[in-house]
Amino acid sequence: MAKKSLRIGLIGYGFMGRAHSNAYAKVGNFFDSEYQLVRQAVCARDEEKARQFASRWGYASVETDWRKLIARDDIDVIDIAVPNNLHAEMAIAAAKAGKMILCEKPLAMNSKEAEKMVAAVEKAKVPNMVWYNYRRCPAVVLAKQLIDEGRLGKIFHYRANFLQDWTISADLPQGGAALWRLDVKAAGSGVTGDLLAHCIDTALWLNGGIKDVNAMTETFIKQRKHQLTGKVEKVGIDDACAFLCHFNNGSLGLFESTRYARGHKALYTFEINGEHASIKWDLHDLHRLQWFDHKDEGKLRGWRSIHVSDGDHPYTGKWWVPGLQLGSEHSFVHQVVEFLQGLESGKPALPNFRDGLATDYVVDAVLKSAKGHRWEKVKQVKG
Amino acid sequence: MAKKSLRIGLIGYGFMGRAHSNAYAKVGNFFDSEYQLVRQAVCARDEEKARQFASRWGYASVETDWRKLIARDDIDVIDIAVPNNLHAEMAIAAAKAGKMILCEKPLAMNSKEAEKMVAAVEKAKVPNMVWYNYRRCPAVVLAKQLIDEGRLGKIFHYRANFLQDWTISADLPQGGAALWRLDVKAAGSGVTGDLLAHCIDTALWLNGGIKDVNAMTETFIKQRKHQLTGKVEKVGIDDACAFLCHFNNGSLGLFESTRYARGHKALYTFEINGEHASIKWDLHDLHRLQWFDHKDEGKLRGWRSIHVSDGDHPYTGKWWVPGLQLGSEHSFVHQVVEFLQGLESGKPALPNFRDGLATDYVVDAVLKSAKGHRWEKVKQVKG
Amino acid sequence: MAKKSLRIGLIGYGFMGRAHSNAYAKVGNFFDSEYQLVRQAVCARDEEKARQFASRWGYASVETDWRKLIARDDIDVIDIAVPNNLHAEMAIAAAKAGKMILCEKPLAMNSKEAEKMVAAVEKAKVPNMVWYNYRRCPAVVLAKQLIDEGRLGKIFHYRANFLQDWTISADLPQGGAALWRLDVKAAGSGVTGDLLAHCIDTALWLNGGIKDVNAMTETFIKQRKHQLTGKVEKVGIDDACAFLCHFNNGSLGLFESTRYARGHKALYTFEINGEHASIKWDLHDLHRLQWFDHKDEGKLRGWRSIHVSDGDHPYTGKWWVPGLQLGSEHSFVHQVVEFLQGLESGKPALPNFRDGLATDYVVDAVLKSAKGHRWEKVKQVKG
Amino acid sequence: MAKKSLRIGLIGYGFMGRAHSNAYAKVGNFFDSEYQLVRQAVCARDEEKARQFASRWGYASVETDWRKLIARDDIDVIDIAVPNNLHAEMAIAAAKAGKMILCEKPLAMNSKEAEKMVAAVEKAKVPNMVWYNYRRCPAVVLAKQLIDEGRLGKIFHYRANFLQDWTISADLPQGGAALWRLDVKAAGSGVTGDLLAHCIDTALWLNGGIKDVNAMTETFIKQRKHQLTGKVEKVGIDDACAFLCHFNNGSLGLFESTRYARGHKALYTFEINGEHASIKWDLHDLHRLQWFDHKDEGKLRGWRSIHVSDGDHPYTGKWWVPGLQLGSEHSFVHQVVEFLQGLESGKPALPNFRDGLATDYVVDAVLKSAKGHRWEKVKQVKG
Repeated sequence: MAKKSLRIGLIGYGFMGRAHSNAYAKVGNFFDSEYQLVRQAVCARDEEKARQFASRWGYASVETDWRKLIARDDIDVIDIAVPNNLHAEMAIAAAKAGKMILCEKPLAMNSKEAEKMVAAVEKAKVPNMVWYNYRRCPAVVLAKQLIDEGRLGKIFHYRANFLQDWTISADLPQGGAALWRLDVKAAGSGVTGDLLAHCIDTALWLNGGIKDVNAMTETFIKQRKHQLTGKVEKVGIDDACAFLCHFNNGSLGLFESTRYARGHKALYTFEINGEHASIKWDLHDLHRLQWFDHKDEGKLRGWRSIHVSDGDHPYTGKWWVPGLQLGSEHSFVHQVVEFLQGLESGKPALPNFRDGLATDYVVDAVLKSAKGHRWEKVKQVKG
Repeated sequence: MAKKSLRIGLIGYGFMGRAHSNAYAKVGNFFDSEYQLVRQAVCARDEEKARQFASRWGYASVETDWRKLIARDDIDVIDIAVPNNLHAEMAIAAAKAGKMILCEKPLAMNSKEAEKMVAAVEKAKVPNMVWYNYRRCPAVVLAKQLIDEGRLGKIFHYRANFLQDWTISADLPQGGAALWRLDVKAAGSGVTGDLLAHCIDTALWLNGGIKDVNAMTETFIKQRKHQLTGKVEKVGIDDACAFLCHFNNGSLGLFESTRYARGHKALYTFEINGEHASIKWDLHDLHRLQWFDHKDEGKLRGWRSIHVSDGDHPYTGKWWVPGLQLGSEHSFVHQVVEFLQGLESGKPALPNFRDGLATDYVVDAVLKSAKGHRWEKVKQVKG
Repeated sequence: MAKKSLRIGLIGYGFMGRAHSNAYAKVGNFFDSEYQLVRQAVCARDEEKARQFASRWGYASVETDWRKLIARDDIDVIDIAVPNNLHAEMAIAAAKAGKMILCEKPLAMNSKEAEKMVAAVEKAKVPNMVWYNYRRCPAVVLAKQLIDEGRLGKIFHYRANFLQDWTISADLPQGGAALWRLDVKAAGSGVTGDLLAHCIDTALWLNGGIKDVNAMTETFIKQRKHQLTGKVEKVGIDDACAFLCHFNNGSLGLFESTRYARGHKALYTFEINGEHASIKWDLHDLHRLQWFDHKDEGKLRGWRSIHVSDGDHPYTGKWWVPGLQLGSEHSFVHQVVEFLQGLESGKPALPNFRDGLATDYVVDAVLKSAKGHRWEKVKQVKG
Repeated sequence: MAKKSLRIGLIGYGFMGRAHSNAYAKVGNFFDSEYQLVRQAVCARDEEKARQFASRWGYASVETDWRKLIARDDIDVIDIAVPNNLHAEMAIAAAKAGKMILCEKPLAMNSKEAEKMVAAVEKAKVPNMVWYNYRRCPAVVLAKQLIDEGRLGKIFHYRANFLQDWTISADLPQGGAALWRLDVKAAGSGVTGDLLAHCIDTALWLNGGIKDVNAMTETFIKQRKHQLTGKVEKVGIDDACAFLCHFNNGSLGLFESTRYARGHKALYTFEINGEHASIKWDLHDLHRLQWFDHKDEGKLRGWRSIHVSDGDHPYTGKWWVPGLQLGSEHSFVHQVVEFLQGLESGKPALPNFRDGLATDYVVDAVLKSAKGHRWEKVKQVKG
């Protein structure tokens, strides 16, 4: 049976452009699908760099104007892998053009924008997804299975953090291609939208909606040279953010993120404590899930370190053999698998733009709470 | 040279009475001092149990009325190892009688009481100490040394939690000898005064004062049978508490405690992130300190797991040989060592009642913040 | 500049055929080279399966007779990814045809065969390599760097083991496509050639030649049904093997492998103890290297867990960002990188057939020692 | 009920004299017994040091001649805590005098001596024990329980090592009070009798007798200055030893010890692989047992890290509360508990001199094998 082509038009060629491209290239080697992904075009303002990227990653053509890319008839899917301040305009245009959309996270600069994006894709009835890829690490999916099977019972606590240490130096500039995450105009916020958004997305998936939040933020380095203007400018992003919250299910949440935690490169951890069992996970050893089951015999109770690489673990049976660990990049492949299965089944792949909006509602409430020094209700996605 | 006798009068024979007695019995075997500790008397309302305890632990006599104990001329030190609601009255009476005082933590039911206790010991000029023993785990003292040596540079983050799981069952009653920690009238508060107080004491010692706090508390099981009345009564304690804070040095703090975290028996952890280095510690493996030093050569940077059992580590040279780990009980011995060295040097041993008051100020602000759903300033101990 | 094509002819489509193909597909996305790898043909006896494999992995054509594949003018490299008993014949034929050769490990059924293979490639002067891929895990290469930099000083000990648990059931049959590793006629030996060969290859690379060995082997399950004959037949392989040895540098070696170690899927570990420092590594967490440096300040000495994912770590700068771990499959990509760099530099990529022979000499001595219950000298590869 | 006095006469005041004294002092505080231990006398050639030790540890008297100590009527138990070369003479004399005997490990300089010691205590019918204290770590006892309950099924593998790093410097002298372990005349052997003896004792207890062994030893530093003679003398001890073996139950054993493993202070580890389950333990974190159970549900299988500090774990219910770890010294207390229970029950406490002899048979075979470069049968204790 001939496969249906799914022609990708990628906007952006940075870290995320590479990660997505790698996923497109690999998925068909390991997973069966009715669809054949075609790397049709990559779009970037710098034509030479776009050509180099296309050559390296096997894209058939290049564009330098994203509006032209969206206008092309031979593109089925627009993949938005550019700074946050460009997401909304591109996504809304792509939706109007009837394209499927895969958008990098966070979905938008704020929930106002995100609402418009949701409205656009829902009006256009186009499949849509947000690249919250950590949901698709096998160990995280295993955690989801265990929760859905009711093994934890009533949930009491959810805690997560995302710790990095790459912006401690005051000499690091802000802005420009490599450092747009430090420029509030491109990023919208600092660690809250960049890192906590991952933690929030996973939490909403695993533990349901968040009712209210109480946050504090900090900007440790108040001024940095801006790469584009060459001038020392005020830093507008949050360097660190922590918040307390209540989930709708009655459990308590505790979240923290910073780029000032020496010794942590990309330490995303979460832990869930339930009546019967608890779960821990850590991005630095993403192929392991920590599991404590109170139903185990008393004298033998202990945290199990599950090496999530067996044939009966999520996704892993499609890859190698038990004991051989996957890496970080595989989560992107699995995200594509989900997207393709969504197309096949008609059941939308998650997280979609609505999920992305839900996370942005939390992000907005967190930033508002930090500014106002008080508890804030979180707006809920209607559905 | 003959040693000076230091005659102990212990009030209480529970878990803490045993831990203190063990420390008194062992300290002279391992540490040199001008002082010889004498287990002179133990006091408890139940005379038969007091006698059994005295026999087991080598106390020379028993009392059933703590006022009589305090009145005895042959007692130099009063050790208060009873529920929190009795600390203030006993300590103030002991101070008036000119006794040295070692008091279990938290110092008092609240900072009002604690202020009176501080006033009493300072007026009487009697040596005083609070049993925040975790300060005296060798790995924690090593952490203190590293901070005092300036190795961490500017501090950005301090996070600590104390997780347990022993009160999850709704069938567990409150009150009485074994479960007074669940009875607000005996304990004053729940995890905040019991567990977070440890975290706060260590934090104040390692990272200085806390400026303001923002807390949430929860009582998951609203009613429990009371052991003494036999009736189902409202639970007045907090089962869980988390708070955000700012330290006076500009660093951000995040604290959490609960007795509803499956899989954790007594998991007290803290982590400090500084400009140059970071530290982690965990009571479940208390003989290890985790150390990350950014000054290490780039490609060889990593968290070091230091087995704190060498001759040049705090206290450990007095015990066994490198590689042989100490246990939890040794922290009490070291607390006694500190007390004795304080007497010898004239420099008060820490943490004293003033330190205990400082922790109670934070505890009070935390509970007030949780109740009022807002940030609260923390009262500072005057120096 | 146009790249030079390097047209691959792959023989075999099992686990290793997939791992190699994945490496060919990915290497150009991440690493620069003068060469462009072309997946030209895959060869297998079952044409239908070969076609499916070609389709999935992008091979341009299929063959069912390996001799025809070797005879093709449009093939530059023969990749041998079939059971051990076929290596020698294929490799010798490929060498005669002037093809470059990448051969799965162990190089041969025994050192006699291996010697002929070395002679063949050296006579034909064709580039050759053996797929001992674990050498090319970034953490293992980092270990090699540290040793080469002299940081360990005199080496005292080398220990390694490779533990699995997949053959414990007596019901597991031997032989056939999936289980040829249990059939002595296809595999040559059991864990010694399959798993210890990896340990030996790494050891020879990191610690130099082995002088003599003293081994014991065991076959726990004496008879298993054979997949091909359908009859219960004697098991000819070793289920477990352990050996003592002396390295030429005076250090002592200890090696063990088994498929009967419950709880270990593919636990390959090694540890090296030197005068100044020690190193540990573990395939189950292959992105980490454990490092102990005696030159660290005394009170701060401890094992460092290095997350080998930084820009200055071997290979990792070409992939993602610090903190994002690579998986097992990446070692194959790096093996291809080495091969290509060998072609570019003219300095043969390692491990080549000579290295494969050196390992086979050790394997032979180990098996002979186990059979004879005595120490055996290891034949050295002449240089 | 009045307790029976058990009057201890201790010979030696080094590390082990302290460890035993600490056990005598503590046991009655935590464990109930018909017996009351009395620290009656300590014996050492240096009277002043003996007096200091007696004062510190509460011994009622001192002796400088061990024969006089043994002759005293007011001594019930002789505790031999001196270098190995003195064990046999002292123990045989003590047995003749009808004393109970607690002897440090290894039991003797060799099995010839040990046989005489066994004969002496059995003729005299005096209770006897060897201080292989690691048997009595709670986690090790838990391992024994799990094995005895049949949870592991058929055993395939047993591996153990004991790694240290304190003799790497060539400047370290041999002999004298502190360094007698490096003097073959006082110690009998190096790591084999000192460290491997522990590993062997535990192995015989957990996994039954050893049939034959095949060993290699090494002395890395060939000459060291002798503390007593002041001259550089040949080093007679083994610095490192490794051996292969077969257990009587068909499992394979692998043992190693060295004092040249940088980064390990006292790393005694063992691992047992059975048909159904596996166990690991490590002296550096002695309060934990690692447990893998194949009967766990497939997708949730993993190594459990059991924090052996609960009320239903061996011994631990007598100490503190769950989560508070014990240290190394507690194993000596438990050894005394076993001895007292043996007296009460009439069932000899283990390990007794016969067990000590069994270990010495293995030690002798190991040393003989290393010398002869061949497999050696192990003599079995009759009984």
